[in-house]
Amino acid sequence: TRSFKIAAIAGDGIGKEVLPEGLKVLAAAARRFDIDIEFVHFEWASCDYYLKTGDMMPPDWKAQLSGMDAIYFGAVGWPATVPDHISLWGSLLKFRREFDQYINLRPVRLFEGVPCPLANRKPGDIDFYVVRENTEGEYTNLGGIMFAGTEREVVIQESVFSRHGADRVLKYAFELARARARKHLTVATKSNGIAISMPWWDGRADAVGADYPEITVDKQHIDILTARFVLQPQRFDVVVASNLFGDILSDLGPACTGTIGLAPSGNLNPDRTFPSLFEPVHGSAPDIAGKGIANPIAMIWSGAMMLGFLGDAPDAPRGCREAHDAIVAAIEEVLRSGPRTGDLGGKATTVEVGDAIAGLI
Amino acid sequence: TRSFKIAAIAGDGIGKEVLPEGLKVLAAAARRFDIDIEFVHFEWASCDYYLKTGDMMPPDWKAQLSGMDAIYFGAVGWPATVPDHISLWGSLLKFRREFDQYINLRPVRLFEGVPCPLANRKPGDIDFYVVRENTEGEYTNLGGIMFAGTEREVVIQESVFSRHGADRVLKYAFELARARARKHLTVATKSNGIAISMPWWDGRADAVGADYPEITVDKQHIDILTARFVLQPQRFDVVVASNLFGDILSDLGPACTGTIGLAPSGNLNPDRTFPSLFEPVHGSAPDIAGKGIANPIAMIWSGAMMLGFLGDAPDAPRGCREAHDAIVAAIEEVLRSGPRTGDLGGKATTVEVGDAIAGLI
Ligand SMILES: CC(C)[C@H](C(=O)O)[C@@H](O)C(=O)O
Ligand SMILES: CC(C)[C@H](C(=O)O)[C@@H](O)C(=O)O
Repeated sequence: TRSFKIAAIAGDGIGKEVLPEGLKVLAAAARRFDIDIEFVHFEWASCDYYLKTGDMMPPDWKAQLSGMDAIYFGAVGWPATVPDHISLWGSLLKFRREFDQYINLRPVRLFEGVPCPLANRKPGDIDFYVVRENTEGEYTNLGGIMFAGTEREVVIQESVFSRHGADRVLKYAFELARARARKHLTVATKSNGIAISMPWWDGRADAVGADYPEITVDKQHIDILTARFVLQPQRFDVVVASNLFGDILSDLGPACTGTIGLAPSGNLNPDRTFPSLFEPVHGSAPDIAGKGIANPIAMIWSGAMMLGFLGDAPDAPRGCREAHDAIVAAIEEVLRSGPRTGDLGGKATTVEVGDAIAGLI
Repeated sequence: TRSFKIAAIAGDGIGKEVLPEGLKVLAAAARRFDIDIEFVHFEWASCDYYLKTGDMMPPDWKAQLSGMDAIYFGAVGWPATVPDHISLWGSLLKFRREFDQYINLRPVRLFEGVPCPLANRKPGDIDFYVVRENTEGEYTNLGGIMFAGTEREVVIQESVFSRHGADRVLKYAFELARARARKHLTVATKSNGIAISMPWWDGRADAVGADYPEITVDKQHIDILTARFVLQPQRFDVVVASNLFGDILSDLGPACTGTIGLAPSGNLNPDRTFPSLFEPVHGSAPDIAGKGIANPIAMIWSGAMMLGFLGDAPDAPRGCREAHDAIVAAIEEVLRSGPRTGDLGGKATTVEVGDAIAGLI
């Protein structure tokens, strides 16, 4: 049977602490479900590497990674002496674009045993997906500064959308909504204030949606949409958003379920022309890095998503979906009654939580 | 003594229901504090007017309003047959720009007696201001569509920032933070993803902040910032943001305090070269319009802000600040133990809540 080759990249900060726990759990799942996974470790795509070499990645990074089935990624961006346009644009944002990972899929779910910051919400009330466009939109370095350094300074920042880019993420979101029980899709917009791109985006949602008459579509402006995440989280099923709005909603959503420390993400290339990348939503978290107290669950859950995605391919070995489910069940069990890290009010270490989850596989 | 001339514009939807309650309370406060206020009613800046005349406002709208001391505004945008680029860009957004109302000031405060959607938060935990840039930034109709209507369609949306525009809103926010006990300013940004305007914005915050060494400045990316509104609302004192980010934060903030139905705003021209505009943050709320059940408190509180702002002018009559405080105290009292509308779990009508507040002045 076919085996997987997975690039393991720790990156910076707590990335180095949570990645080993994710690998530990994946190894346990691979053993139990008889999946053949080879992990290939890369020290680059980290600020350490940049500080040593002057580059975030070696010149042949793309060739080195292109043969991989997926990238399992910790976090990047620390120390702060390395500016974002080097650390992030030189690694994570580059992967998203150059590997055409045009879907950023981010589940938002309230677990039993996790204290919810929203009053009177119980597991089941919050259980949805944010589908974020991941390659274009508001994240650009296009534009410039006129009269720079003077009182007359004017700055232009351009967002770039394409029908190609919008339609494929909308289609993905409609398909996901169709596969779910409630068949409800929220489209994030701001067409009343951002007058060119967002009315056009609304139009693309209508056009793509014409093929999905069974899906209820609810267009919401981003301002009131963030308010509704807090006031009526149970109303959401699948939420599709531009790069920026998806970024916002996929931090706010997990916050409403207790902690960013649980939230996983898949940077997906659904066409499988390049490897997809799986990473926690949280970043390198410099404030707690090096202490061994970071919550590894976002990393571990990201690993489960990776197996699920790999298992959906036509030629995938058996057992991947089962492995995904087993990891998620182990996470549920540990959140219910196992050791927990400080962000969840516990005192357990990163390793203790990783061991507990691996032990249940 | 000097008298005030205030433009009263109801607009659309629940604007027509909440404005009279605001006027009722302002009249009571004017009587009690002996302030001479004349209200001048305008039927335009509404979709009804547009549907009758084909324009949102008469050609001489600017001349008609320029002589006013302030504009007291309900809500605009309904029925949906009038597109946003007509209704909003033809009234509210036009006022903000043409009257150079470059500050959008939006208090966020948890009141006693209001059920908080966040678990375990009490009044005092949430009490901050969002200072939103209100004339430039992400809200533009600049850009365009290439290869329109084809598969190759590409859309450019431009944001425009200026040193003039950024520095004045940052300065206003630093001054506000300086006047408050905690002297803390959060600067919303997204300089790790939006690569031209946002790093520049961060730089302007540093430059303006150099004059305010006593203020603690915390730059936060908008994604994690929305998460912290939910997880750590007590950490905020003054939050300054671009047009779009301020729009988002000033809906999310009030949601965290229970209902958008309380949130007031001042669209301020601090130089007083044109009238400032005071309006509830909520919109025309078509779903409840015409039923007499809208919460009038955001409108009433906006009226209090108007008196406070007018009273801060050098030549203002006495009593304005006292009138502001009396209205806010009456709102507090009614929220604690008076009638409440449906959004707060009560059954009172708009008029009943207005009467209760006016009766306490
Ligand atoms: C109606 C809309 C254009 C407006 C805005 O986005 O500014 C509103 O949401 C607000 O916050 O005043
Ligand atoms: C680090 C940053 C550039 C990134 C983003 O904004 O996409 C992160 O917030 C995320 O959500 O993956």
